[in-house]
Amino acid sequence: MSGTLHGVGLGPGAPDLITLRAARLIEAARVVAYPALAGAPSFARAIAADLIAPGATEIAISLPMSTDRAPAQAAYDAGAADIAAHLEAGRDVVCLCEGDPFFYGSFMYLHARLADRFPVEIVPGVTSLTACAARAGRPLAARNERLAVLPAPLDDATLRARIAQSESVALMKVGRHLPRVRRLLAEMGLAGRATYVARASLPDEVVLPLEEAPDTAPYFSMILITKGADPWL
Amino acid sequence: MSGTLHGVGLGPGAPDLITLRAARLIEAARVVAYPALAGAPSFARAIAADLIAPGATEIAISLPMSTDRAPAQAAYDAGAADIAAHLEAGRDVVCLCEGDPFFYGSFMYLHARLADRFPVEIVPGVTSLTACAARAGRPLAARNERLAVLPAPLDDATLRARIAQSESVALMKVGRHLPRVRRLLAEMGLAGRATYVARASLPDEVVLPLEEAPDTAPYFSMILITKGADPWL
Ligand SMILES: C[S@@+](CC[C@H](N)C(=O)[O-])C[C@H]1O[C@@H](n2cnc3c(N)ncnc32)[C@H](O)[C@@H]1O
Ligand SMILES: C[S@@+](CC[C@H](N)C(=O)[O-])C[C@H]1O[C@@H](n2cnc3c(N)ncnc32)[C@H](O)[C@@H]1O
Repeated sequence: MSGTLHGVGLGPGAPDLITLRAARLIEAARVVAYPALAGAPSFARAIAADLIAPGATEIAISLPMSTDRAPAQAAYDAGAADIAAHLEAGRDVVCLCEGDPFFYGSFMYLHARLADRFPVEIVPGVTSLTACAARAGRPLAARNERLAVLPAPLDDATLRARIAQSESVALMKVGRHLPRVRRLLAEMGLAGRATYVARASLPDEVVLPLEEAPDTAPYFSMILITKGADPWL
Repeated sequence: MSGTLHGVGLGPGAPDLITLRAARLIEAARVVAYPALAGAPSFARAIAADLIAPGATEIAISLPMSTDRAPAQAAYDAGAADIAAHLEAGRDVVCLCEGDPFFYGSFMYLHARLADRFPVEIVPGVTSLTACAARAGRPLAARNERLAVLPAPLDDATLRARIAQSESVALMKVGRHLPRVRRLLAEMGLAGRATYVARASLPDEVVLPLEEAPDTAPYFSMILITKGADPWL
């Protein structure tokens, strides 16, 4: 009998945005795994820190900073092998995932490596998408409106076309792309409808009209564009 | 000092997918409000039932079944007036919202009526989007992939264009549109990549390849299309 791999969403950062199911699983976990960027403290682990049992075995999957594919793949291969050893020995593994595991999450790389060999259960979490909308005070979509989720690193032409065709847009992974996106939205006459949200739900959260946002955005930031054609009244 | 309106996301249906923050707010609430369709028991209330304090005042906003705009507007006007009376008297009101309040949720109609007069706090919740992906075992999007969220009632041409342009698509509000959407996806050669999920996370949940889904889908159902161009390995 092999163990089960639990991919557990933790929400956007505030520990009380963890679900009851996720909290119970983490508290009971004897093996927890999580990603950590280039040796820095793991954000996922930090969100769940108060729930991890003192004696739990921890598997930190250390990801390289580089955007090259091969080193990241090697890190996931090694992490998946560590996790597989526990699962084969019949021990469940709880993998901690910022936000939701299947929404632009790195858990997908472990899922792709392990889901055909072991039972997997996913616990969905609050995504940064709705966490940012909540903090911005901006409803995302209603009725028959279209919502596009787009990574900001996409090229200008793609971004422009998709933004034009949707009532609401969330731009993920803003980081160093902020000045380019801001220029693009200004050209489209949408700068005034865009909100910048960084580190939503955390103590150092920032929410600003895009026009007032800093030129260098942190990795954990998003731009929301809601055209508000309809006041929903 | 007026009270605060809390728009509280409850997740897709399983009571343990409520967040810790939402659970604490509901337990402490002296006034709770929720929508109820045409006199039927409220789904939102059912999700949170075990958390509502015995003596709490309950405001059920009874929405008409008709898709006409005027009767629904009148119901929201009346509900907002009831809620406003409590807020004016200094009492907080916790409004229960299935999924996330700002993700195609009816809370937006109350928000539009009350947010300019009273303090509002939104507690984001797990959306049906990631809950359905979790149950289908299908990652939604990674890296620079585009995710489109589209209501199934949109016309064929719009659906076709947007589905063609996105790596992943979630079709909301499937209901009676299922046969039409299935035909459209078959024409696009995507039927084999689509999963049908109804009542995700509830005891009577259904997860099926779209090709095997029933012709008459319930209101709480979704179709996920993930093209999986990249195995994320
Ligand atoms: C690799 S993705 C992970 C998304 C995560 N799985 C989720 O469900 O939200 C990282 C991106 O998510 C967004 N993000 C995650 N957490 C955030 C937060 N607390 N505030 C703002 N944006 C956030 C940013 O756009 C960031 O670049
Ligand atoms: C008015 S919207 C409300 C969405 C909700 N606010 C959320 O965050 O998921 C209703 C639509 O959400 C989807 N939905 C909500 N809950 C669901 C569930 N448990 N399973 C499948 N689909 C669901 C269906 O597409 C349904 O037609």
